[in-house]
Amino acid sequence: MRVLITGANGFVGRLLAHQLLANEAICGHAIGKLLLLDARLEGFSTDPRLRLHEGSITDAAFVRRVLADGVDVVFHLASVPGGAAEQDYDLGYQVNLMASLELLDQLRHQPRPAVLVYASSIAVYGANLPARMDEQAATQPELSYGAHKLMVETALCDLSRRGEVDGRALRLPGIVARPRQANGLRSAFMSDLLHAYAAGEAYICPVEPHATAWWMSARCCVNNLIQAADMPGLAANTERVWQLPVLHLSIAQVVDALASRFGEAGRAAISYQPDARLQALFAAMPPLKSPHARAAGFTHDGNASALIRNALNLGTARKTSYAQTQNAMRKII
Amino acid sequence: MRVLITGANGFVGRLLAHQLLANEAICGHAIGKLLLLDARLEGFSTDPRLRLHEGSITDAAFVRRVLADGVDVVFHLASVPGGAAEQDYDLGYQVNLMASLELLDQLRHQPRPAVLVYASSIAVYGANLPARMDEQAATQPELSYGAHKLMVETALCDLSRRGEVDGRALRLPGIVARPRQANGLRSAFMSDLLHAYAAGEAYICPVEPHATAWWMSARCCVNNLIQAADMPGLAANTERVWQLPVLHLSIAQVVDALASRFGEAGRAAISYQPDARLQALFAAMPPLKSPHARAAGFTHDGNASALIRNALNLGTARKTSYAQTQNAMRKII
Repeated sequence: MRVLITGANGFVGRLLAHQLLANEAICGHAIGKLLLLDARLEGFSTDPRLRLHEGSITDAAFVRRVLADGVDVVFHLASVPGGAAEQDYDLGYQVNLMASLELLDQLRHQPRPAVLVYASSIAVYGANLPARMDEQAATQPELSYGAHKLMVETALCDLSRRGEVDGRALRLPGIVARPRQANGLRSAFMSDLLHAYAAGEAYICPVEPHATAWWMSARCCVNNLIQAADMPGLAANTERVWQLPVLHLSIAQVVDALASRFGEAGRAAISYQPDARLQALFAAMPPLKSPHARAAGFTHDGNASALIRNALNLGTARKTSYAQTQNAMRKII
Repeated sequence: MRVLITGANGFVGRLLAHQLLANEAICGHAIGKLLLLDARLEGFSTDPRLRLHEGSITDAAFVRRVLADGVDVVFHLASVPGGAAEQDYDLGYQVNLMASLELLDQLRHQPRPAVLVYASSIAVYGANLPARMDEQAATQPELSYGAHKLMVETALCDLSRRGEVDGRALRLPGIVARPRQANGLRSAFMSDLLHAYAAGEAYICPVEPHATAWWMSARCCVNNLIQAADMPGLAANTERVWQLPVLHLSIAQVVDALASRFGEAGRAAISYQPDARLQALFAAMPPLKSPHARAAGFTHDGNASALIRNALNLGTARKTSYAQTQNAMRKII
């Protein structure tokens, strides 16, 4: 199998690459080549199956060269995050919308339709969510990021209906715990809270303790992406868009789990200065039922303790320290 | 006011141009220039307000020249019809999707946001409609035409939210009575039935008599397009997409109205050979409630008799003949 990851240098992309190389198979076959595409690709292993392609996904000729020998499975993760795309509309338009459409258009012309796993986002719903939510909730994006994700979902469904790609779009919640750096993601505070508590540092949380959000660890996210690819070939008229199951937790519940893992003393270092915009976008999330996605094999982390363990890549043993695992993470991916 | 119509040579475009020149004002101001854009523009009047721009809407540089002096109102009607776009995917992709996105992107950079009236389509819903339908019905396009219309709606809403255009998308049903020619529209049979009965000709109807469809005359459609432009400037967070009110009529009800207008004798010339695909796409339409659109001033034709009168451009007097009015239509638009 020839597998491509776009946005392979990103937080989720690196972990996905690592996991794919560790697994025995994808879609029932061994991985022959794993093509990685990103603007920069740094610190990857020397696994002979890897092929590194540094360049811009907005460069159609470059993408054509990457696809020249065909691909069987594509994980399309490349994306300008929501906050950054809102600030720089043109960049988001070129990367999130136009490059995705171009990738889809190039994949149409393969002799055999590729399995295309697309990282969509809960940003497609916008902030005006129903009090009890399920997988049929209406979409009304409130950021260009969400609008473009929704448009690409629509294109993916259309080409899948035509039998030209075998697409599967997953609507991802904010994924934790991203590296602590400015990354243009409005949901970054969710990761920052985990890192700060684990490291025993002070943290000013921009949403209230009773604010509820949807949570998923990168480890769980990667498992879901691989599950999406591993599903058997879907018929043309199948539903192609899944709202992933999520953990619905308040900040207070997450802090309780952090206190349980890293000690009660850390609570005193967390203070709250709510930001109205973040509160509206990420912190008033209703319960979400996703029986359809669960039936298809998609999962959330299980509970708050497991979320923290998965998110910070801790073992189950209590003595694994945060610092040790963060160093280990840097090496393996 | 500088007003642009794309797809101006089309059936609806020509009637819209005629009506705009006849009206005193649009958006409360007199029309200074009416820019018409289409691949060909034939037989338009010599009204000094007209500016004819022949060229392809897929040519970004051409569109940029047309927009060079700015526009206040755009009616974006240019479109490859559903059947034709399904046959020639690339053509539909370039015209219905990419050219529309390019037009939107060019309009973003105007000093003052243009009012953009977009002719979307009921094709956004697909064939799997609920038994009782309203304006909140889920979208699930089953043709690339509908997928691309839906994507452009999403883009229009996003740029409107950003305050860069003042967009209004209308979901149009099949419009009658289109000229009798091969036009790539799967709903063409609805127009053909009207023309054939009015002309006293035999007609083989490809859906059953009890098949129900949504109907609107071109005259009514043009009034709705103008109504969409005439609405006051909408706030950024306003709903931008309207499902137009429609007449929900069976073929039998339409034939009854035709018989009432043109005589009972014509009934014998109508026979039925249902086509399963057309039947599924156009002839099992449920009742549709659209209180939101009605409150915003949008209308349907009223009843079957008025539909036929409007569609065939007949006067209210019984003695206006079909042949006379069809000849008159050719001259005025």
